[in-house]
Amino acid sequence: MIETRLTRRFGIDAPVLCAPMALATGGRLAAAVTRAGGLGLIGGGYCDAGWIAREFDAAGNTSVGCGFITWKLREKLQETPGLLDQVLARKPAAVFLSFGDPTPFAAAIRAAGVPLICQVQTLADAKLAAGAGADVIVAQGTEAGGHGEKRATLTLVPEVADWLAVHAPDTLLLAAGGIGDGRGLAAALMLGADGVLVGSRFWASAESLAAPGMTDAAIAASGDDTIRSSVMDAARGLSWPGRFTARVLKNPVTERWHDDPQGLVAHAGEIAADWKAGWDAGDPSRANTFVGEAAGLIHDRPPAGEILTAMMSEAEALLGGGWRGAVT
Amino acid sequence: MIETRLTRRFGIDAPVLCAPMALATGGRLAAAVTRAGGLGLIGGGYCDAGWIAREFDAAGNTSVGCGFITWKLREKLQETPGLLDQVLARKPAAVFLSFGDPTPFAAAIRAAGVPLICQVQTLADAKLAAGAGADVIVAQGTEAGGHGEKRATLTLVPEVADWLAVHAPDTLLLAAGGIGDGRGLAAALMLGADGVLVGSRFWASAESLAAPGMTDAAIAASGDDTIRSSVMDAARGLSWPGRFTARVLKNPVTERWHDDPQGLVAHAGEIAADWKAGWDAGDPSRANTFVGEAAGLIHDRPPAGEILTAMMSEAEALLGGGWRGAVT
Repeated sequence: MIETRLTRRFGIDAPVLCAPMALATGGRLAAAVTRAGGLGLIGGGYCDAGWIAREFDAAGNTSVGCGFITWKLREKLQETPGLLDQVLARKPAAVFLSFGDPTPFAAAIRAAGVPLICQVQTLADAKLAAGAGADVIVAQGTEAGGHGEKRATLTLVPEVADWLAVHAPDTLLLAAGGIGDGRGLAAALMLGADGVLVGSRFWASAESLAAPGMTDAAIAASGDDTIRSSVMDAARGLSWPGRFTARVLKNPVTERWHDDPQGLVAHAGEIAADWKAGWDAGDPSRANTFVGEAAGLIHDRPPAGEILTAMMSEAEALLGGGWRGAVT
Repeated sequence: MIETRLTRRFGIDAPVLCAPMALATGGRLAAAVTRAGGLGLIGGGYCDAGWIAREFDAAGNTSVGCGFITWKLREKLQETPGLLDQVLARKPAAVFLSFGDPTPFAAAIRAAGVPLICQVQTLADAKLAAGAGADVIVAQGTEAGGHGEKRATLTLVPEVADWLAVHAPDTLLLAAGGIGDGRGLAAALMLGADGVLVGSRFWASAESLAAPGMTDAAIAASGDDTIRSSVMDAARGLSWPGRFTARVLKNPVTERWHDDPQGLVAHAGEIAADWKAGWDAGDPSRANTFVGEAAGLIHDRPPAGEILTAMMSEAEALLGGGWRGAVT
């Protein structure tokens, strides 16, 4: 076992959270990660209240958290004011917010006695999250799958760690982006993180809601085959703030439109229809596969518990001196 | 001390190479890193034979290597056919090639009995370098300062490590990009690297040829303040292959032109003149400061030997169990 401030604070055995991946981390996956010793977070993403309720039910009595896309939550609360309260009433292990200012939601989450986890993509965002009272800050690098920004995990984590050490020493720090095995977990701990948030590796698990055709495509891919793009948000008609792009597998859609955003807008209707049909069919050549650079480290789709166990064993061995060298 | 395959192969005390940063890593800096226990590589970059000869002289009797920009070396050998032989005659500790196919130069380097270090930015490039007979492959992530590509160090290193383990197990692997202190070094070793190549941190050293105004700007900056762009190559009239951009500090030049490449071309003459004048003056507001995301980890400009000693001490402590947690 690896004991850190994260495992002590949350009463878990492994310093590993399953990322709340929209449309992929359902209740079964989140619960599987919790049962294996980590903590799973349901991918509340775009804030569909019915979907979220169903996936909490699927998690059963296992303790899980829930994540939201922050700018979408803000929008959604206009039409469904009770959404956040509905989730808080489930007594989630944590609420996770990413992609927007968490400040407007912090008080309600705190009042419910639920830990607030804020994912950030820059040092500036980390300062904002700390100011909002985040219990845990997740520093997410550009290598991550799905939405994110430009900074890399390897520098963002220690830079945020240094800032927190001075300004918010009780705030925990997790690394996210590019962590696909025990090597990444051990590296994150060297960088000053209290644990990691893992997306892509759990996305390609037996319990994931990801389409088999898409996880197969990721298994066949290298990290070289991914790209950060806004093509698929434009195709879906989603109003993501411009600073956030999504890492996906390159395919004919990104090849055609990534460098032609004006053409994309001009043909938005037909592109959207085909993209959505491709998504519904789980076809990685017509819709995009949301996966990070860690695709190059993923070669199978086993149960999430096996993934976590292997990741922990590998990290424990490395931290115990099993790397290729020695301090002499 | 940290012993790895790299320290044994090169007979050095620390698994740390100083990157051959064009116009920054002169003979004094390279020699200082070697004397402190690592290995310094002169930044032969754009292949100015006179500059290279002068900097080898400045290194004196201390063993150093030399780096080249591969596509520029290919060009330059048309007009100065003896350039590579001139460097090989110095019996360098290694020749380092990055940004282009190393294959045409490998035979001459090997015939001289000089180790060939190839820096790569993708898994595909790593395969090419291994095929060319590289003794050492440096996997460089996007967080690096100066020229580079899009993949991040945290995933590129283990993915290349896995490939080498099967196809070229005797080829050493270094991590580059974002490694600014002992945390980054320890993390790289967890990822499967035999050592690291450090640029930005040594760029901000007493012996560096970098302009004081530029290192001051980097010391004041966060990693958030950097950008990968081609603006400064266009401004300098350099014909870099399109896949390679350079990470620099954002400034009025990148703010104005990064998203307006056509405007940049239309005004290339005047922009180039002002950029070059700014460069000669060491003015970070008119020319660009070449530094990586590790800028956020850099707070001073001490002698290179002190940097290396501190990096090693920190890494040794972490590898010895001094991280914030424990395997239980």
